[in-house]
Amino acid sequence: MEIRTNYAADNYTIHVDHGILESRLANYSAGYDAVHFLVDHNVYELYKSSVLSFIDSPIILEGGEASKSFDAFKRITEALLERGVQRHHLIVVVGGGAVGDAGGFAAATVLRGVDYIQVPTTLLAHDSSIGGKTAINSTHGKNLIGVFYRPKAVIYDLAFLETLPDDEMLSGFGEVFKHALLNNEETVRNLMAKTQEQISLDVLKPFIIRGIETKMHYVLNDEKESGIRKHLNLGHTLGHAIEYKYKMPHGIAVVLGLYFMMFLSNRVEGRELFDLDHFKQYFIHHGYPIQKLKSIDEEEMMALMGRDKKNQSRGAIGFVLMKSIGRCHFTEIENTELKKYLSYLKESL
Amino acid sequence: MEIRTNYAADNYTIHVDHGILESRLANYSAGYDAVHFLVDHNVYELYKSSVLSFIDSPIILEGGEASKSFDAFKRITEALLERGVQRHHLIVVVGGGAVGDAGGFAAATVLRGVDYIQVPTTLLAHDSSIGGKTAINSTHGKNLIGVFYRPKAVIYDLAFLETLPDDEMLSGFGEVFKHALLNNEETVRNLMAKTQEQISLDVLKPFIIRGIETKMHYVLNDEKESGIRKHLNLGHTLGHAIEYKYKMPHGIAVVLGLYFMMFLSNRVEGRELFDLDHFKQYFIHHGYPIQKLKSIDEEEMMALMGRDKKNQSRGAIGFVLMKSIGRCHFTEIENTELKKYLSYLKESL
Repeated sequence: MEIRTNYAADNYTIHVDHGILESRLANYSAGYDAVHFLVDHNVYELYKSSVLSFIDSPIILEGGEASKSFDAFKRITEALLERGVQRHHLIVVVGGGAVGDAGGFAAATVLRGVDYIQVPTTLLAHDSSIGGKTAINSTHGKNLIGVFYRPKAVIYDLAFLETLPDDEMLSGFGEVFKHALLNNEETVRNLMAKTQEQISLDVLKPFIIRGIETKMHYVLNDEKESGIRKHLNLGHTLGHAIEYKYKMPHGIAVVLGLYFMMFLSNRVEGRELFDLDHFKQYFIHHGYPIQKLKSIDEEEMMALMGRDKKNQSRGAIGFVLMKSIGRCHFTEIENTELKKYLSYLKESL
Repeated sequence: MEIRTNYAADNYTIHVDHGILESRLANYSAGYDAVHFLVDHNVYELYKSSVLSFIDSPIILEGGEASKSFDAFKRITEALLERGVQRHHLIVVVGGGAVGDAGGFAAATVLRGVDYIQVPTTLLAHDSSIGGKTAINSTHGKNLIGVFYRPKAVIYDLAFLETLPDDEMLSGFGEVFKHALLNNEETVRNLMAKTQEQISLDVLKPFIIRGIETKMHYVLNDEKESGIRKHLNLGHTLGHAIEYKYKMPHGIAVVLGLYFMMFLSNRVEGRELFDLDHFKQYFIHHGYPIQKLKSIDEEEMMALMGRDKKNQSRGAIGFVLMKSIGRCHFTEIENTELKKYLSYLKESL
């Protein structure tokens, strides 16, 4: 299955299917003088004698957030230059969201930009590999250094998803769930019904593809995040703060953030828009640590949220909230108000 | 005097005049919530009680290439984040070419891009602040990491040029001379006549403005360096290698590179297009170390030139040469040929 972007220019294709990596990649790499692979350490160990056996001496990146430090950025770009990367070469980035962000940033900046292809290997990366965002982390927060730089293609080979560890599955499912919320009530009901007992890959595939389409819809007309793309930030304002503070996998922290979004939407709307108990039990059943929200420090969370680059005004923090499932709006909540809501949240758990 | 760029979108103005910094800047900063200054250490020491007295607690950058290391990149972006930089803020970069490159790269990448204004303070920076190139250095060569990112304006206050140390003046003059070569024979004759004895600022001003216009002409239709913009690289292929090897100021190394370009153009054309003795004496009179070319190591220079990101093919190195003054062409010279030419050059000195 293929999804084609629809920008004014520089469009690319997102290929989603089982066992497609080597063949699809061959089509692209034929057009370049040389191909350099940046591959997540853990992914390479798992797949070097199977899916990735066709790759010759890749540059290995530490997995996870370690690949998004300034030092790692230096190592990656220097390694590419050491191998003689040139402007008419292709860089292929194979890994989870963090490796995709870091590899994309290296591709965007080495020689002021070399073409690259994203090969996401986690459930979460179905989200982060779409939209042309690249980034590394600052000591002040995640993803604070980066550029917008579109890949030449995304090749999403679902074969990689079959060996995902539990917490990566949970983390990726967080974004799948967010995309369902952005769609409509039926999609959420459907997703929860099909994953009532357990989250299995077979059941997820249509939701993954739907999630990619949902994300594309938001990204296409708002690449630089001035308007509706902000809605993709649903659950992320508190989510990022929690992720940063507790070093929790991204999508797991996002689920905690989504829970707070539901809590806050109910308060702001003044009605029971979300059945909080229902969602809480569902999340806890699947292993999301909702109870962690009971022990957050309000001031600390607010300081971290205030640093987020999407928060532009002082004395208030912006949240994406819902009027109903599928209908978002961006609201700034004054600091004194927000502190109260965070306290209420803690009491409610 | 003002020069306006002429891109399809995202145009900006280059203001060139005496004593204009504070007033011009005020017009721009009025449109932003906050302004952050990145200022070259040496420039700030010289001007903090005069031209720059209106600036409150700037972020100070080490001058020169030290500001273009990975570590400096980290320090600059972290300092901006520490001060709470946000997307609707303005960054003003005050300094020579190196600080402009490094500050521009920080502005381009912090929060995935914050608006910035270049305030060049050296003669050389009249060149590097035009064209939207930002960069830091790799251990593999200069400017190998960066992005294309246009400023919102360039404010070129000539007041900064009056206290330039000799070698910065010589370095800047190298690019002024290059721009004259790109123009036509008359401009070169004129420039050499007016600077026969010494290079004085009063005489240079029209050539600076002419140089900016020349550079704009090349950059406007070829921002990403696929075609004629390469001509701006005149003298830079060997120049960069010499600069890197001997840690020589950029424009001084470029003059050595220009001398080799003249030598090579004569050889390739098979005629005395450039009167080498005439140029050699002129350059030496002004203090350019042309004799340094006698002691270069051919293999080492070729290895360094081969790393240049503008050199795309193996076994040959690309040079911008001239058919006559004002008429450039790009030629690849095979490695064995090139080595001979470099030896001939050494013998000729």
